[in-house]
Amino acid sequence: MPISNKIHGLITRSSWIRKMFEEGLIYKKKYGPENVYDFTLGNPNVPPPSEFGDALLEVAAQSIPGKHGYMPNAGYPETREAIAAYLTAKFHIPLTADHIIMTCGAAGALNVTMKTILDPGDEVIIPTPYFVEYEFYVDNAGGISRLVPTKEDFNLDLEAIRSAFTEKTRAVLINSPNNPTGRVYDEETIRGLAAIIEEKGRLYNRAVYLVSDEPYSDIVYDGIKVPFIMECCKNSIIAFSYSKCLSVPGERIGYLALHPELADLQDVLSGMIFCNRILGYINAPALMQRVISHIQGVHVNVEEYKRKRDLLCEGLSACGYSFAKPEGTFYLFVRSPIADDVTYVRALQLRRVLTTPGIGFGGPGYFRIAYCVDDAAITNAMPGFADTLKEYQNR
Amino acid sequence: MPISNKIHGLITRSSWIRKMFEEGLIYKKKYGPENVYDFTLGNPNVPPPSEFGDALLEVAAQSIPGKHGYMPNAGYPETREAIAAYLTAKFHIPLTADHIIMTCGAAGALNVTMKTILDPGDEVIIPTPYFVEYEFYVDNAGGISRLVPTKEDFNLDLEAIRSAFTEKTRAVLINSPNNPTGRVYDEETIRGLAAIIEEKGRLYNRAVYLVSDEPYSDIVYDGIKVPFIMECCKNSIIAFSYSKCLSVPGERIGYLALHPELADLQDVLSGMIFCNRILGYINAPALMQRVISHIQGVHVNVEEYKRKRDLLCEGLSACGYSFAKPEGTFYLFVRSPIADDVTYVRALQLRRVLTTPGIGFGGPGYFRIAYCVDDAAITNAMPGFADTLKEYQNR
Repeated sequence: MPISNKIHGLITRSSWIRKMFEEGLIYKKKYGPENVYDFTLGNPNVPPPSEFGDALLEVAAQSIPGKHGYMPNAGYPETREAIAAYLTAKFHIPLTADHIIMTCGAAGALNVTMKTILDPGDEVIIPTPYFVEYEFYVDNAGGISRLVPTKEDFNLDLEAIRSAFTEKTRAVLINSPNNPTGRVYDEETIRGLAAIIEEKGRLYNRAVYLVSDEPYSDIVYDGIKVPFIMECCKNSIIAFSYSKCLSVPGERIGYLALHPELADLQDVLSGMIFCNRILGYINAPALMQRVISHIQGVHVNVEEYKRKRDLLCEGLSACGYSFAKPEGTFYLFVRSPIADDVTYVRALQLRRVLTTPGIGFGGPGYFRIAYCVDDAAITNAMPGFADTLKEYQNR
Repeated sequence: MPISNKIHGLITRSSWIRKMFEEGLIYKKKYGPENVYDFTLGNPNVPPPSEFGDALLEVAAQSIPGKHGYMPNAGYPETREAIAAYLTAKFHIPLTADHIIMTCGAAGALNVTMKTILDPGDEVIIPTPYFVEYEFYVDNAGGISRLVPTKEDFNLDLEAIRSAFTEKTRAVLINSPNNPTGRVYDEETIRGLAAIIEEKGRLYNRAVYLVSDEPYSDIVYDGIKVPFIMECCKNSIIAFSYSKCLSVPGERIGYLALHPELADLQDVLSGMIFCNRILGYINAPALMQRVISHIQGVHVNVEEYKRKRDLLCEGLSACGYSFAKPEGTFYLFVRSPIADDVTYVRALQLRRVLTTPGIGFGGPGYFRIAYCVDDAAITNAMPGFADTLKEYQNR
């Protein structure tokens, strides 16, 4: 094998999202992009808030010696202070700059976390359906992913999680609001999970961490409140990204926030700062660190995504599809009318409606619609959704 | 152990550069920063060229839909085309956008490369003295670093490299202009290395890659020509960073360039693009990709670094230090007057002159001076350099 056998194997079973997106490019070439309805990628289409553009212009024009130079691997102290102050004011957990590490988005934050806490063979519990790249992040650090299905309504199955623990479990990795289901875990559920984590940590005499991937925490609807993980669990680590709340995923800016009472806090912080360096990130991009320090709490107009969600849900309901209405994110996870979600997604594809099979999220029997698209794409895709459903209902 | 045993071990034997830098902070607090001469970090102090600032302002002001969104994991096609066109015009190797992958600096590029080509236990030959973080990058991918000393003049010892090959060798990783020695390998040496790589690839029937880390390729003096690796070796991969040539190391922008005739080119490209994603970089920062596409070939005023080099070399020569004058980079690797370079560096530190022991680069018996500092720091440090040398000569 010319390249690493391992990487060759991983590529082969790699992302369905990218696969469907790339197949879609062929359709777009053939039929014209306006005639293909692409719901594959979670690439935000609501523009960044004006505050982002203003802050960017201001920072770009600043004349500061060493403006684009190295800073501490954890990031600019001022940026980390601004984030800590924002979180503390909002959630009343006394965070300081020392509890924040700037990262290359949430993907960087999660890689840094796994590298810091896992020794080869250590295990991470991941509820499914899930963002499949998590498995790569765990594997990059030599860890093993233990996939645990959620309940029928995509809420956490706490008993199943409890049963999945072994003495090798170092973390539970959750994502709420969830990609691909749009589910937000409520406070009672998180407290239940925290109790299990504490119980198991005592049993095995080894800290277990709740790692919470939260890029969608600002994108929620209908007054839903996303519980603040740190209020429920002391051993919690938050991986945040500005990708979705500011519509800037290409800029790779996010952070890790560690609970002030985290077990072995100083060791974990040192490890993360070190891993940020040796994994090759070195630091989060300097300019974006400066930008986001000015606009804490700013986010895109969520009403835009709500309108799209409602348009989509009403349309699909009228067709006869069944699904749980998303409480957050810009994803809808729809039950496939047939058990084989890949076949159904291929059938939609023939009508130029591009979605991603649930199997690509460890959720077979469903498919994912990323509705961060123009309203017209939703409206124009409806006949394709309707006709495909009719075709399979009549078989 | 609260964190990964492995990471705990790595931190313990971690970077002398950061260690000396951090100890220096204590000195600066005690004596005032202007009275401490800090030559520890390679953080460029010559300002970015004006073209960079202009391009940044222009790009920041642009109104383009999806401007900060995801792009292909390899980077914007326009940026990759601009780089390929620049390299092709300069070096006459027919590169296209398909041979370029945008990365999170050279550290990101090297991590991506190692993850792509190495299976656990595969070996990488690294000439010493070297940038010690290379060992972490190789280890992150499960590989093993085979350290091979250079000759007395810091040129490659080709026979020693030949002897270090085993059937597990997948790459030779070089860095020219070299950190910490400032040495530039000449064309004959590179061609000799290429011949060994080809010979061993045939012998073991497995491609061996020449991986060339080139962040300093634009920072050379006295008309020295840095040979273009691709002219000498078909199995070559270049890791480039704009950190040093544009003085923007905090922005994390660089690229991988692959020789058009590289063995198994398509597999290596696919692997690298995949690894760029799963290692959590996802893509190089979007805004900086746009900026650098406008300013190919632009670099900082190298005369500034030359003046600093000359000031430093003349001063140290007059004191009686012995060293090889750097041909490039902004580092000087000085022979320690005593075998124990850590003790000597500690003695300099007492005179508020902060350097890094050679042992931190796999080059014991030397110390490194990073002269990307104000001229005044060089001038003001001279009495400290002189007095320390006298102290040890008189023992």
